[in-house]
Amino acid sequence: MRNRTTDGGVMPAGPILMDTDTGVDDALALALLLGAAPGRLIGVVATYGNVAQSQAERNTRDVLRLLGADAVPVYAGSRAPSWADCFVPDAACAHFHGFNGLGGLDVDDYLPAGAPVAAQRAAHLSAAMKHAAQALPDPALVHSADATARATRTTVISYGGYLPAQDAPTIPATAEPAGDGGGVDAIIAAARRWGGDLTLVTTGPLTDAAEAIRRAPEIARNLRIVAMGGAFLQQGNCYDLTSETNIIQDPEAADFVVRSGADVTLVGLDATHRCLCTPAMRDAVRSAGTAQTDFLADIMSVMIEANASVDPQFALGAPLHDPLAAAVALDPTLVRTIDLPMKVQLATGDGHGVRGRTVGDPMGLARLVAEDDVARVHVAVDADSGRFAENFLAALINVPR
Amino acid sequence: MRNRTTDGGVMPAGPILMDTDTGVDDALALALLLGAAPGRLIGVVATYGNVAQSQAERNTRDVLRLLGADAVPVYAGSRAPSWADCFVPDAACAHFHGFNGLGGLDVDDYLPAGAPVAAQRAAHLSAAMKHAAQALPDPALVHSADATARATRTTVISYGGYLPAQDAPTIPATAEPAGDGGGVDAIIAAARRWGGDLTLVTTGPLTDAAEAIRRAPEIARNLRIVAMGGAFLQQGNCYDLTSETNIIQDPEAADFVVRSGADVTLVGLDATHRCLCTPAMRDAVRSAGTAQTDFLADIMSVMIEANASVDPQFALGAPLHDPLAAAVALDPTLVRTIDLPMKVQLATGDGHGVRGRTVGDPMGLARLVAEDDVARVHVAVDADSGRFAENFLAALINVPR
Repeated sequence: MRNRTTDGGVMPAGPILMDTDTGVDDALALALLLGAAPGRLIGVVATYGNVAQSQAERNTRDVLRLLGADAVPVYAGSRAPSWADCFVPDAACAHFHGFNGLGGLDVDDYLPAGAPVAAQRAAHLSAAMKHAAQALPDPALVHSADATARATRTTVISYGGYLPAQDAPTIPATAEPAGDGGGVDAIIAAARRWGGDLTLVTTGPLTDAAEAIRRAPEIARNLRIVAMGGAFLQQGNCYDLTSETNIIQDPEAADFVVRSGADVTLVGLDATHRCLCTPAMRDAVRSAGTAQTDFLADIMSVMIEANASVDPQFALGAPLHDPLAAAVALDPTLVRTIDLPMKVQLATGDGHGVRGRTVGDPMGLARLVAEDDVARVHVAVDADSGRFAENFLAALINVPR
Repeated sequence: MRNRTTDGGVMPAGPILMDTDTGVDDALALALLLGAAPGRLIGVVATYGNVAQSQAERNTRDVLRLLGADAVPVYAGSRAPSWADCFVPDAACAHFHGFNGLGGLDVDDYLPAGAPVAAQRAAHLSAAMKHAAQALPDPALVHSADATARATRTTVISYGGYLPAQDAPTIPATAEPAGDGGGVDAIIAAARRWGGDLTLVTTGPLTDAAEAIRRAPEIARNLRIVAMGGAFLQQGNCYDLTSETNIIQDPEAADFVVRSGADVTLVGLDATHRCLCTPAMRDAVRSAGTAQTDFLADIMSVMIEANASVDPQFALGAPLHDPLAAAVALDPTLVRTIDLPMKVQLATGDGHGVRGRTVGDPMGLARLVAEDDVARVHVAVDADSGRFAENFLAALINVPR
């Protein structure tokens, strides 16, 4: 199930299982997989993260339906991080992904069945663009990284990976409780069925992947994971600029996965901040002129506006985090990696580091230097952004109608 | 003044100016330069860091004298970070470098002129090894990272890069005031005289280098700096594991240097933690049987013990931070680098990061992606530890008698 790459390596060609918190760039990642590797997506686990799990599941089904992939099974993944009792998306997620995780767009507006479709679509896109142009709310209002508070709460609420700043005695109606609805078992079953031929692509927190390995430790040895996650030589994209969103949601899960012995490629901000979605790329997708490419182009418009409105780094384009991870699952040569034993810091303070930071594991490095170990984690530190952009556009224009 | 390297690059062959806070590994770096590149060391600027500036200057002169290099001029560098009024080394420095920065050893014990030299030497080494085997004192006793306190003090004291934890109304007798005694002008003069042929090797804080570029901005364009400093994919070696010692001493100076346009190679912990000084390497140096190699082997013994006693990562050997930077100055192919626009975070907190952390500059990356800029900073992320060890041992055994 693997083909040789031009540099003599092995190009993965087996089945792909995706674990995703379907927001805007996750939707583009789904489209990339469907367009670039028809028939290889064997299932999608929808988990919490950019949105609540229930919304992610709805969005996943909607996107698959629009892209003619209703037959791909969707499983319910975790609804909260491993360290929390329930989860609420934070304000930054709502800014970048819109109130519904799809930038405020409605897939039904793009499907032929709808009635006054064009007018509705225009109204939805107009509202989405207005929202995306607004600045972020004050992060201090929506989070607290006070780790000690965790132990004293009976019900721990994760607001996008952090504890709520104010004491919250009642659980918000939008909070979803921990646990999963079959997604973890789906990962275990796929790993057992396909072994080393399977690639698990994660574009959300690593809660499901960690729980799968915890329940079935024997799957780790053969499991290939390509995870969008981490910030290494570049700053993080969370409040203290040290951690990356998918990792801060569940640092314990991420730490467990990178130390599990699984073959893990971390596609983090060092790579994704080099792969920007520009207006020209959006226009190229739109020019294909189908309902599907119209939807994908509108998603791209929302992403471009939402990023440019709050961060001058992205004045020229929006980072294509999840699509890059999906593309790397198909072609590992799109990124330059450093192979290292890694860990995730779990606490903040002297002797601990910063909670959510992805760093080298010091004892792992010592074993590597002593040649008592090999590195199973591949950290992407650069990306071939030109070749990725070509692959990405070709795939999106090729999505099923 | 440059030779071709085997991979077609250019091997620097010009004069070397070193800027150093001479502690134990700085002494080995000096030995490496004298042994591997006879005649190329045109001067040494002695600055604060591992020890106070006055001690660094004394140690530098002692080591040069022992290694037959009295003729190399020594200049007085900065005595405190750019952000502080005066400086005191912290307890960690004293642990790793001994009370005098040379592991408690006395160069005169090794010189033929001494009287009962062998007995003195044994007594000094015994005391040094006993000290090196002790655990570190509680860091909470010696530092505070409370940045806001800075603005309210009339006299700002840097304890190894941090503010003292307790309010310290009187300046300790060991504190040395800010300013320099000619070292900065020596850097400017060398840069003007030698231009792009000069390599400035820094093994301490970047205070002198920053001040030189501030006073004479035109030198930056042609200046090649190889700096021991930074932690990237690996944890830092300071209290919060985010910054590296040389950077936390003067984050403002380091930030200024990496953004100055100078050609800067950062040899940080990602590379140096792979290059360990083992007992076998120490024994190889000792077997050369000269007064000089005896001293260097004793320094290595103190380093091995001081590191192993506090950090299981270094059970097999002590990291050769400064010698690796010196070796990279002579042969850049010893490390694998990633070329990036870099910065140093100057404050701690939401929207700021962690003071002293070396990270990619987001706007610099955006310009790089847009092809409006080139990266002038080369971050070492791996090292050829085997080849480095060969070069290091050959150089130390070759030091002048």
